[in-house]
Amino acid sequence: MIRIILSGANGAMGKNVQALVAEQPDLVISCGVDHHPDPEAKFPQFNSFEAAGIEGDVIIDFSHYSMVPSLVSFAAAAGTPAVICTTGLSDEIIADVEAKASKVALFRSGNMSLGINLMIDLARRAAEVLGERYDIEIIEKHHNKKLDAPSGTALMIADGVNEAADGRYDYQHGRHGKDAKRMPKEIGIHAVRGGTIVGEHQILFAGTDEVLEIRHSAASKKVFAEGAIKAARFLASAGPGLYSMKDIL
Amino acid sequence: MIRIILSGANGAMGKNVQALVAEQPDLVISCGVDHHPDPEAKFPQFNSFEAAGIEGDVIIDFSHYSMVPSLVSFAAAAGTPAVICTTGLSDEIIADVEAKASKVALFRSGNMSLGINLMIDLARRAAEVLGERYDIEIIEKHHNKKLDAPSGTALMIADGVNEAADGRYDYQHGRHGKDAKRMPKEIGIHAVRGGTIVGEHQILFAGTDEVLEIRHSAASKKVFAEGAIKAARFLASAGPGLYSMKDIL
Amino acid sequence: MIRIILSGANGAMGKNVQALVAEQPDLVISCGVDHHPDPEAKFPQFNSFEAAGIEGDVIIDFSHYSMVPSLVSFAAAAGTPAVICTTGLSDEIIADVEAKASKVALFRSGNMSLGINLMIDLARRAAEVLGERYDIEIIEKHHNKKLDAPSGTALMIADGVNEAADGRYDYQHGRHGKDAKRMPKEIGIHAVRGGTIVGEHQILFAGTDEVLEIRHSAASKKVFAEGAIKAARFLASAGPGLYSMKDIL
Amino acid sequence: MIRIILSGANGAMGKNVQALVAEQPDLVISCGVDHHPDPEAKFPQFNSFEAAGIEGDVIIDFSHYSMVPSLVSFAAAAGTPAVICTTGLSDEIIADVEAKASKVALFRSGNMSLGINLMIDLARRAAEVLGERYDIEIIEKHHNKKLDAPSGTALMIADGVNEAADGRYDYQHGRHGKDAKRMPKEIGIHAVRGGTIVGEHQILFAGTDEVLEIRHSAASKKVFAEGAIKAARFLASAGPGLYSMKDIL
Repeated sequence: MIRIILSGANGAMGKNVQALVAEQPDLVISCGVDHHPDPEAKFPQFNSFEAAGIEGDVIIDFSHYSMVPSLVSFAAAAGTPAVICTTGLSDEIIADVEAKASKVALFRSGNMSLGINLMIDLARRAAEVLGERYDIEIIEKHHNKKLDAPSGTALMIADGVNEAADGRYDYQHGRHGKDAKRMPKEIGIHAVRGGTIVGEHQILFAGTDEVLEIRHSAASKKVFAEGAIKAARFLASAGPGLYSMKDIL
Repeated sequence: MIRIILSGANGAMGKNVQALVAEQPDLVISCGVDHHPDPEAKFPQFNSFEAAGIEGDVIIDFSHYSMVPSLVSFAAAAGTPAVICTTGLSDEIIADVEAKASKVALFRSGNMSLGINLMIDLARRAAEVLGERYDIEIIEKHHNKKLDAPSGTALMIADGVNEAADGRYDYQHGRHGKDAKRMPKEIGIHAVRGGTIVGEHQILFAGTDEVLEIRHSAASKKVFAEGAIKAARFLASAGPGLYSMKDIL
Repeated sequence: MIRIILSGANGAMGKNVQALVAEQPDLVISCGVDHHPDPEAKFPQFNSFEAAGIEGDVIIDFSHYSMVPSLVSFAAAAGTPAVICTTGLSDEIIADVEAKASKVALFRSGNMSLGINLMIDLARRAAEVLGERYDIEIIEKHHNKKLDAPSGTALMIADGVNEAADGRYDYQHGRHGKDAKRMPKEIGIHAVRGGTIVGEHQILFAGTDEVLEIRHSAASKKVFAEGAIKAARFLASAGPGLYSMKDIL
Repeated sequence: MIRIILSGANGAMGKNVQALVAEQPDLVISCGVDHHPDPEAKFPQFNSFEAAGIEGDVIIDFSHYSMVPSLVSFAAAAGTPAVICTTGLSDEIIADVEAKASKVALFRSGNMSLGINLMIDLARRAAEVLGERYDIEIIEKHHNKKLDAPSGTALMIADGVNEAADGRYDYQHGRHGKDAKRMPKEIGIHAVRGGTIVGEHQILFAGTDEVLEIRHSAASKKVFAEGAIKAARFLASAGPGLYSMKDIL
């Protein structure tokens, strides 16, 4: 039996995790952490990681970037591994996560779906083969309630491609003006927002008279909850370190 | 016989116009204007509209926005109608064009293709039917040499939709940040640049669990040269005023 | 209070209708009809329209095309209007529906979403403006459990466009062979199937060096249940006749 | 100096090859073969490979599948390598090409662009990672003059994916009917035709609530002529055997 501490327990993703955990007999949610605890929840809830009594084998986090520092402090102090699915982390928070990973197993991925992670792998390969003669642009689309732009996944894709290209790219977030000509060493990133779009990511490689494009679209967030649970199973028995989807692919 | 003064004569679009004019016996290019005159051209060329000796029945302009003020001054003084196909005009230049149109026939359209103009018409109708419950976003894609962003055509589409919606929208050029949540009254506009993409425009209407999209793509600039010639035929005999594609649809 | 007879009560769409009816106090499901009645349902269920005791103000049908003949016979005999949302009807069944509509209000639409119906309207207008010089193709995508191909919605789009073009088109369902050249008077229709895709429809108008495309995608079937309920409200008080989305737009 | 025998010399692709050869000083077209020889061509032309006097170092073929058997017979007899770019070959003709490759270097690829060949490579990898839980569909779009459906490139993509999946797939060319449900072991292939579309290929992997898509579009056929010339340079000095793009990537 793996006991899950669910961070962001009452958000939409928290509820997806609850539903999937309910279907798997060897998993249980031992407690939840949420700024707005639900008094009618079927498991104990706390309003922060500073609270006393939080217990479990592994944390799954779908909360808000502002909650991540206290979460990883708790994880490191208690020796409880954590799957951090929240996006929009600042460089400072990322550095904090990396530092804490020397003491406890932490898993972080801007996107938890198998499809997205394969997409990144394909995009890296495309960038290697096509080289500098093809311009790279990323377009992502999400619902109109999303706070951060671009999505963490879009940045993951850009970072993956950039790494495969020896870091030669800068990121350009939108373009506007009379003299906004494209530089060869930039990756344009565009954040489209509207309706209830769950998540769509495209990467374009545009060369002379041809365009190669890889696109992923998700119709529900269940894919992320499933990925998070898959990661939690892996992480529950992992030693200290920073893990990612590559480790469970 | 209609005598065309070709502004931007030696650019790519100028050459497309030359090719199409050569196929039509009742048209001739009487002279060209270009910052870099071609001494081997088959017609007289001038390096600015201040030069003496420019003659013809109608101007077709595919030059650069900085050339437009002197062009419309010439047009108004000489009484020569002008089809202005150059994009990226500032508000100041647009006001100048509008002022000069009281003296001579001027035609201006951010995009000269039948398909694009139909697209705008359809987008207006969609905006009227769908109303405020659907979020509107525009994505345009062009080659990596384009100077202005977004394209004049993207702005035409946005303006058309906004007009049909009683002007309730602001334009948002890209999004970037941790708190970049979409406002209901904005139209997001995204300028993708890469390779030799001739021109693609999409408009999305994203509602609850559905997206309606209208997309236009051009595979060559011939469509714009053809539209410009069609407009020039119309304009050659038109009285003073500001005309657009609506007048020749 | 409008009393709804829900046909196909226990299918996925039936459940979506149940959920939306539960949110609207002036609606109630008086009974259900389903080949596999659910003994634990909150309303009486019958296994066919031949059963005695079926009562209500309006029928909403999300069943199977084979059930439609008995449904419209019941509707005509009982004077109960019916919203027929089931797709894949044969010409014979359609003729039957049309015949019964002289006695009772029947509503039929291959697709119940506002977006799709607007799409058809825009496609008709595009076909009128662009005329014979542009080739028309339709691509639809649905999940891998769908029985009929193409979708009823794809046929609705084709029929709408064809009607606007004075019926000059034949439909071509896929192409295969060494001499499968396109005829000018055909509309190609392509049925893509995979995964859990809820529903996507595209129509292309391909001309010389340009393509205009209208695309609609649905992320859930809730849009159809909502459209069905909207139609049921309208139909409950309508006289005999065959109605469609045009009447409630 | 490499002397090229250009088969299909007067077709559109033949002319693209002529234009690119003219730019490269170490290449020359020694003669052309075409069912309709052009008496004004700048190089000798023959109306079939049975004619006497055909000479050169390597053949580039952009003709018609019916011409391929006589071409490879000539190639084998004369010891002249051939780059066969013509699509739509029957199994019989393919077997003939394979047989002749034991005597002379033959190069065959349904598509000559770097982008398409990379696309196939990525699609193979995606098929391997995603496995049987994702449905595969291919959509290709070409101009309305294309004779064969689907395109040779679409079949290349399907074959590449099928090979990576141990040949478990059958190909389904379009779907039509009331009981046209998708089988798990099929790859749907759809041939869209319209206007002057140069060539677009998409492959979809559709799983539970997600779709991964790879798309390639070509804006002109220059990419194929360039690939053919690149292959001809390689082949001119190659020993007997059947070669493909993999050998020059």
